[in-house]
Amino acid sequence: MVSSSDKKEGIMSRCLQRLSAFPGKIRKLGQDDPRRITHSLKVGLAITLVSLFYYLEPLYSAFGDSAVWAILTVVVVFEFSVGATLGKGLNRGLATFMAGALGFGAHRLASLSGNKGEPILLALFVFLIAAAVTFLRFFPRMKARYDYGLLIFILTFCMITVSGYRDEELLEMAHQRISTILIGGFTAVAVCIFIFPVWAGDDLHNLVANNIEKLAIFLEGFGPEYFKMRQGEESPKKVSEGFKSVLNSKQSEESMANFARWEPRHGKFRFRHPWKHYLKIASLTRQCAYRIEALNGCLNDKTQTPQEIRCKIEDASIQLCSESVNTLKELALAIRTMTPPTPANQHLINSKIAAKNLKSLLNTGLFKETDLLEVIPVATMAYLLLDVVSCTEKIAESIQELASLAKFKSTKKNSGISHAPHHVITIHQESPCLSVDRT
Amino acid sequence: MVSSSDKKEGIMSRCLQRLSAFPGKIRKLGQDDPRRITHSLKVGLAITLVSLFYYLEPLYSAFGDSAVWAILTVVVVFEFSVGATLGKGLNRGLATFMAGALGFGAHRLASLSGNKGEPILLALFVFLIAAAVTFLRFFPRMKARYDYGLLIFILTFCMITVSGYRDEELLEMAHQRISTILIGGFTAVAVCIFIFPVWAGDDLHNLVANNIEKLAIFLEGFGPEYFKMRQGEESPKKVSEGFKSVLNSKQSEESMANFARWEPRHGKFRFRHPWKHYLKIASLTRQCAYRIEALNGCLNDKTQTPQEIRCKIEDASIQLCSESVNTLKELALAIRTMTPPTPANQHLINSKIAAKNLKSLLNTGLFKETDLLEVIPVATMAYLLLDVVSCTEKIAESIQELASLAKFKSTKKNSGISHAPHHVITIHQESPCLSVDRT
Repeated sequence: MVSSSDKKEGIMSRCLQRLSAFPGKIRKLGQDDPRRITHSLKVGLAITLVSLFYYLEPLYSAFGDSAVWAILTVVVVFEFSVGATLGKGLNRGLATFMAGALGFGAHRLASLSGNKGEPILLALFVFLIAAAVTFLRFFPRMKARYDYGLLIFILTFCMITVSGYRDEELLEMAHQRISTILIGGFTAVAVCIFIFPVWAGDDLHNLVANNIEKLAIFLEGFGPEYFKMRQGEESPKKVSEGFKSVLNSKQSEESMANFARWEPRHGKFRFRHPWKHYLKIASLTRQCAYRIEALNGCLNDKTQTPQEIRCKIEDASIQLCSESVNTLKELALAIRTMTPPTPANQHLINSKIAAKNLKSLLNTGLFKETDLLEVIPVATMAYLLLDVVSCTEKIAESIQELASLAKFKSTKKNSGISHAPHHVITIHQESPCLSVDRT
Repeated sequence: MVSSSDKKEGIMSRCLQRLSAFPGKIRKLGQDDPRRITHSLKVGLAITLVSLFYYLEPLYSAFGDSAVWAILTVVVVFEFSVGATLGKGLNRGLATFMAGALGFGAHRLASLSGNKGEPILLALFVFLIAAAVTFLRFFPRMKARYDYGLLIFILTFCMITVSGYRDEELLEMAHQRISTILIGGFTAVAVCIFIFPVWAGDDLHNLVANNIEKLAIFLEGFGPEYFKMRQGEESPKKVSEGFKSVLNSKQSEESMANFARWEPRHGKFRFRHPWKHYLKIASLTRQCAYRIEALNGCLNDKTQTPQEIRCKIEDASIQLCSESVNTLKELALAIRTMTPPTPANQHLINSKIAAKNLKSLLNTGLFKETDLLEVIPVATMAYLLLDVVSCTEKIAESIQELASLAKFKSTKKNSGISHAPHHVITIHQESPCLSVDRT
């Protein structure tokens, strides 16, 4: 039995523990992405800027209490990336304007119907517009790009029609409100763009390149690790599992692509950069990640395959891994430097040759004298590797497409880099096969 | 060359095409989930209700123009599910209250420092609180449950401190505003709960069960389809690919679980129903879906395996598929009816036996006389099937845990159903093996 005072102490000590862990967590969040700190300061700055409308006499006398809408707009519109902020700002601005005009029209129409009819007609308009626009928000395309605008449309329409019923100076109010909203929106967008901007497009670009690289990093560790395993042992888990995040990155990629489409020309990206095509590459990368997840499963398997069998395909597999790693790294580099990947990518060709070798090795009946059940795990692994090569090929093709869509330019400097020795990986083996097979 | 008038016509005709497709799309959206229509009507109703504050004289004289905050609250807080609405409503209410109190304190503190110091001190407070709370929003736990509350906290704090500088009747204003926000929040929550409520918990519960069932449906089609394929042919794609949605369902499951935690006791669910445990089941289901994705790849492969080889493991594989299908369907049914799955699930035991059979079949060296490369695709397929069985086992375990955590009660009626013949699938074969192997 636990007494209630014991329970209280338990809760107290847990709270204390959490509190003491708090500074560490803050530091970690900041270190993981220092842009979080600048973003927070930027939000503080933007809000302080618009609050000047209250403190400075000439500004206050011009806008009065409507200045509160500027603060509200900044708080609600300011997002982490420029694309998200611009998207929200434009949505808010346009929706306010359109709903304001429609609301004013509805108000005029209703006022024609006399004192009794007016509130009934107004209520009917509000009901119809709110229901219809809410339904519109379910359309996937609308949801992706205009969800916030539709919300603000409902809000503004209802506020204008309803408060129009009481307020005599409707136009004056609407004018003040729209101008403060515009001021708030511009402040948010300006602070977001001109002080350490965070571009959703950059993030998407890097994410796609990083994801491809994560697959490469796994493969780099996988080959040596797999062949180092002794029979019946589990892998000591030294292989990077960073690729796991690739499996579930679909939604964040999609929202980044949506944000990126709002962004103006910046850095290396033109205005109509083919952001949607990144989603295609990302989806192929994810396909490849599923295979890699299965390969990862091979490591966790308490394998029943004797060393001798595994050693027979070790060289071919390691070769295949290493060429795939080089291909993937070269592709990631091509995205990163925005240069077209060489159409006849030597590593890709090599990896296809390695795949052919592995296939013919499996085919020559090296395993005839052994039990099939013992061979299957290794054969499955090999089969998955062959799959990875074909996935890599597809990724390469779609990056080629991206390069032509986005008009990547090859620079001499880069074509030098892409064959420079520093990213040609030769995987060093440290495997028990050396003692089993070759001595 | 395309003339500009041709271009215009092209755009016009595309617009017309889209417009004419619009009614069909609306119908489809409504048919896919009729709750979307009721939701839209509910939103319209709630907004119309709070707009009565303007139309009815006694209400208007009590709240005045603050009534606009009630409309704003309803529009912003009303979400599709009860959990999301309650979460947003509670977040908004609590944050408004806390930020209001803190803002009032800050305003008092600043007013002590004289006419010159006050705006400077206020601006400093606003900057610090806005930056600090914005940073808090990056904590994943905060983001999941309190993101909206933190936003509203910044908003209210800034509005109260800043407008306090000008407004003499700060307390009066704050009081009016908070009460209208409460009224708006209550209206939204009440309409959401009492008129055709949509529970996020129900949705999560059903989604998890559906996802398990989707895997079963794939497997049900897979076995017969795979063994019907002729050598070198691609599968005619009759197998359901519904499982693909399972691969990317993580984010929607997580947000549903977050919403569900706000929901009160309803229907079959107690207040502290273990919603988080659903995420565990869902993640295991996804693990299984990765295997199934690989199996699906086996169908698309232009297989090189001769019929004779495949036929050798056909019976065992089909048996395994069919038992796995039954296990998965029984598990989905257990979730759906909220009854504990029988610990000694006969189908699970059968599927393990089938797995053993398949293994020993692979082991007996049935394939000795053939080329290994021809065997590998089939062996990989078999290996994946074995993997599916062990995934199924894990899913069964975690559903057993759920049953004990959520205190599922076994009813006689159900224990009857779960062994009733209607969901014991016997897969009928229509395969070329009949002619190849058995004649």
